[in-house]
Amino acid sequence: MNYILKIDCFDEKGLILRVSEIVFKNGLNYVSTSEFVDHENERFYMRAVMVGDINVSEFKNTLSAFLPRDAGIFCEEIRKKDIIVLATKENHCLGDLLIKHSSGELNANILGVVANHDTLKPLVEKFDIPFTLISTENLSREEHELAVLNELKKYKFDYMVLAKYMRILSPNFVANYPKKIINIHHSFLPAFIGANPYKQAHERGVKIIGATAHFVTNDLDEGPIITQDVVRVNHEMGWKDMQKAGRNVEKTVLSNALDLVFDERVFVHGNKTVIF
Amino acid sequence: MNYILKIDCFDEKGLILRVSEIVFKNGLNYVSTSEFVDHENERFYMRAVMVGDINVSEFKNTLSAFLPRDAGIFCEEIRKKDIIVLATKENHCLGDLLIKHSSGELNANILGVVANHDTLKPLVEKFDIPFTLISTENLSREEHELAVLNELKKYKFDYMVLAKYMRILSPNFVANYPKKIINIHHSFLPAFIGANPYKQAHERGVKIIGATAHFVTNDLDEGPIITQDVVRVNHEMGWKDMQKAGRNVEKTVLSNALDLVFDERVFVHGNKTVIF
Amino acid sequence: MNYILKIDCFDEKGLILRVSEIVFKNGLNYVSTSEFVDHENERFYMRAVMVGDINVSEFKNTLSAFLPRDAGIFCEEIRKKDIIVLATKENHCLGDLLIKHSSGELNANILGVVANHDTLKPLVEKFDIPFTLISTENLSREEHELAVLNELKKYKFDYMVLAKYMRILSPNFVANYPKKIINIHHSFLPAFIGANPYKQAHERGVKIIGATAHFVTNDLDEGPIITQDVVRVNHEMGWKDMQKAGRNVEKTVLSNALDLVFDERVFVHGNKTVIF
Amino acid sequence: MNYILKIDCFDEKGLILRVSEIVFKNGLNYVSTSEFVDHENERFYMRAVMVGDINVSEFKNTLSAFLPRDAGIFCEEIRKKDIIVLATKENHCLGDLLIKHSSGELNANILGVVANHDTLKPLVEKFDIPFTLISTENLSREEHELAVLNELKKYKFDYMVLAKYMRILSPNFVANYPKKIINIHHSFLPAFIGANPYKQAHERGVKIIGATAHFVTNDLDEGPIITQDVVRVNHEMGWKDMQKAGRNVEKTVLSNALDLVFDERVFVHGNKTVIF
Repeated sequence: MNYILKIDCFDEKGLILRVSEIVFKNGLNYVSTSEFVDHENERFYMRAVMVGDINVSEFKNTLSAFLPRDAGIFCEEIRKKDIIVLATKENHCLGDLLIKHSSGELNANILGVVANHDTLKPLVEKFDIPFTLISTENLSREEHELAVLNELKKYKFDYMVLAKYMRILSPNFVANYPKKIINIHHSFLPAFIGANPYKQAHERGVKIIGATAHFVTNDLDEGPIITQDVVRVNHEMGWKDMQKAGRNVEKTVLSNALDLVFDERVFVHGNKTVIF
Repeated sequence: MNYILKIDCFDEKGLILRVSEIVFKNGLNYVSTSEFVDHENERFYMRAVMVGDINVSEFKNTLSAFLPRDAGIFCEEIRKKDIIVLATKENHCLGDLLIKHSSGELNANILGVVANHDTLKPLVEKFDIPFTLISTENLSREEHELAVLNELKKYKFDYMVLAKYMRILSPNFVANYPKKIINIHHSFLPAFIGANPYKQAHERGVKIIGATAHFVTNDLDEGPIITQDVVRVNHEMGWKDMQKAGRNVEKTVLSNALDLVFDERVFVHGNKTVIF
Repeated sequence: MNYILKIDCFDEKGLILRVSEIVFKNGLNYVSTSEFVDHENERFYMRAVMVGDINVSEFKNTLSAFLPRDAGIFCEEIRKKDIIVLATKENHCLGDLLIKHSSGELNANILGVVANHDTLKPLVEKFDIPFTLISTENLSREEHELAVLNELKKYKFDYMVLAKYMRILSPNFVANYPKKIINIHHSFLPAFIGANPYKQAHERGVKIIGATAHFVTNDLDEGPIITQDVVRVNHEMGWKDMQKAGRNVEKTVLSNALDLVFDERVFVHGNKTVIF
Repeated sequence: MNYILKIDCFDEKGLILRVSEIVFKNGLNYVSTSEFVDHENERFYMRAVMVGDINVSEFKNTLSAFLPRDAGIFCEEIRKKDIIVLATKENHCLGDLLIKHSSGELNANILGVVANHDTLKPLVEKFDIPFTLISTENLSREEHELAVLNELKKYKFDYMVLAKYMRILSPNFVANYPKKIINIHHSFLPAFIGANPYKQAHERGVKIIGATAHFVTNDLDEGPIITQDVVRVNHEMGWKDMQKAGRNVEKTVLSNALDLVFDERVFVHGNKTVIF
């Protein structure tokens, strides 16, 4: 069987040696390994794919005894993740996920889609995925968010993907899913935070626009960046043309970020990511 | 002889026809033409390269009579521009210009280099270009700027190029050279305005950094953007690594922007550029 | 009403003037214009978007009288194109077109999908598009192609899009649809022509791979290139990883090429394109 | 003191553990480590930066006893490399190296420049680097190569950099410097091998061109690729415009490749590279 191991701890002498000894003694073999030491923050990161046959929780306990106290240890058999997708009206990111899901290319099971408009219902149901509309009508922001939370609690998921979900999540909401919510932001963060970044970009007259996939923390536009990409624009393009050009980038960036996250290649530390 | 014609005016019916008739009647032939109408601002832009033999000022007068009152008309025989370069300590942008100048690839004559440090003196003098040090020592910001202005007045130049000139120019200074000062900003504007953008980028944990060439208006970090480019960075890179990676982009972006400006391909309108 | 005008002819003096006079006399107004002269081949290209109210065929006749004999003149009211898509088993390009089609973002109507496998039938039918399977079983290459041709004759379409159609079309087939067949080639042409370009790229150890959208001429891998894009790869990636990375590029490149073609921005001359 | 360790050997169980034990027992500490297993070829690659104080040759002997027989072991104190540059007439790559060398940014000492034309003599001598002209006049290909070889034997260098050296090196010549010669090829290999790739690219009508830095093996245009980059081109550009656009890419690609090689981040295996 194949396992993923992720370690994130205070940097000390001999960490690779210690881990490698335990891996070896447990009859595991490295398929691949990557390490990184963030010297500025004295932090050690390691990711390994291993083959063998272990009791995962015992293995983690053994490791834990030999690693610094603060060590974050993740070890799991390799498996598809379970995800929930939140969306609003735009179909390009969600559509891309559905197409990839339908051909097995997405390394995840889409358990359901929750949206604040019914625009995407027909699309989602074509792919036999449960679609839940939680309209904002007659609901305060708090009430709506609570309704979404209640819906989400029906599912057991690894990650929540905001596929152009155009609502700002409150810190309370986000606190329920630390490092579990991935957003695609339609701008090349940190530029053009806020409403309608394409309009902002057009007004500023930039020659390149981009998109950013990031974990959601307290603020929808902040949070650790996973990946970004760009596309050239020019004076001929109004902001709607920029928006259209941006859509291809948005879906590719989100898709690439999800590949990295679902493959357990991403570590989050503070407001940054380490990506193997 | 080859001429460049640039027209920038309020949009009206039949402008291309009117211009084409005058071009034709003056025995000129289009080598290439480009037009763009900014419908949002009802503005017409046209650039043409023409071959023939005209009296330029008469031709401009004729055109002027047939174009809207506010028309900006630029017409010149094609020629190399004369430029002044301002620099501080970093040699990559200046060095790139000097190398290109020495092989005739830069479409401009470098009349001189003015710097606030003497670090680059040996480099500049290797290429037989006059180097003037105007140190900031014992000078207030105003006094230093005045000294630079006085030095600049000795030259007759078309454009001033800030090749990593690390001083902020005052609005008074800039007002002397409207649309004539080109700066390379070491960030992907509008992100990371202000001091040490690479450090800011590193702290924000972005995955792509960039550089921006722009005309200088009142604020060193604002002004109409001419061109931008980017380079990928990752968690292994400290801000000095990002800075190093950024240098190759900075010099390429500046060089591309100067090619566009010196070829008279750039129109400035408000805080934006139209580039053919 | 809005019209697109495209002119492609031998270069002569005064062409823009002549066209502009006719445009003006017909009460048309330019919304945008672009011209290009290929001096090497003495060829003039012009594209204009015009607003007004004309009899298109009369307008073309008038133009024709004032333009060089060999002039190609295309003039049409702006409209969505009608297209047929050919596919095999891979769903990413086709899926992208279906998603865009369903939200009105594709500037075309998909009349039907024809495939040589039934893998994509469920996907296509989800979107209520006719799907026709023409299996190659028990058919010679010629017989299969003839069956496809007969099926295609049932439709009246502007363009045929090969969305990862993994069959080589014979010159006979292609001759039926000159400049009408658009293919996405899974390589950065002209590198890696032939079977399995990702495997070839992996074996050669390249650091960047790409995709190419082009018109199909006699040979599936040749023909005038419309657009290309690239993505970085590295030594960790096997050829299947490269193939996966390539899929995002393939669908974006195809989609961008179709936007250009459907907007009538592309001229084909010999083995090259001029794109406004 | 800081050391670089590079290991390249047949893949076996427990390699990282064995290396880490020896590193630890020698009082060394990892600053950074990277490993990669090429499963297709059953090959293990490891690069480590270590801090400590060792006798390098004893350390290598110890390692060697614990590693597979075929193991390539490189261990050295971190130092600047010594290089020789070969050039012809174009100044952009050489100029870029000289500028970077002069500010200490190039991680190498340029011992000398050897050229087959005297065009670049003034440039090189500005930077106080020895320039040797070995003209091809009155010399056969073999005689010229022999003369170059004799000149090169005067220097003790780590790498030979072909900075647009427009001569094809014979297998005999190359055999003297295995994995030591780095070339910048003015095309996006493997496309447009052979003479004047920009002309070839123009004729084929590609929309993206590129440059490739690679180790030279038997054939100037082949050999393991180190890095590549691209730039967009369009129908307006003649092949000389493409060549000009290509120059910025060429020098950046060469510079990036040299950074990787001089930092000992590159492994060569067969016709491919592994790059950490």
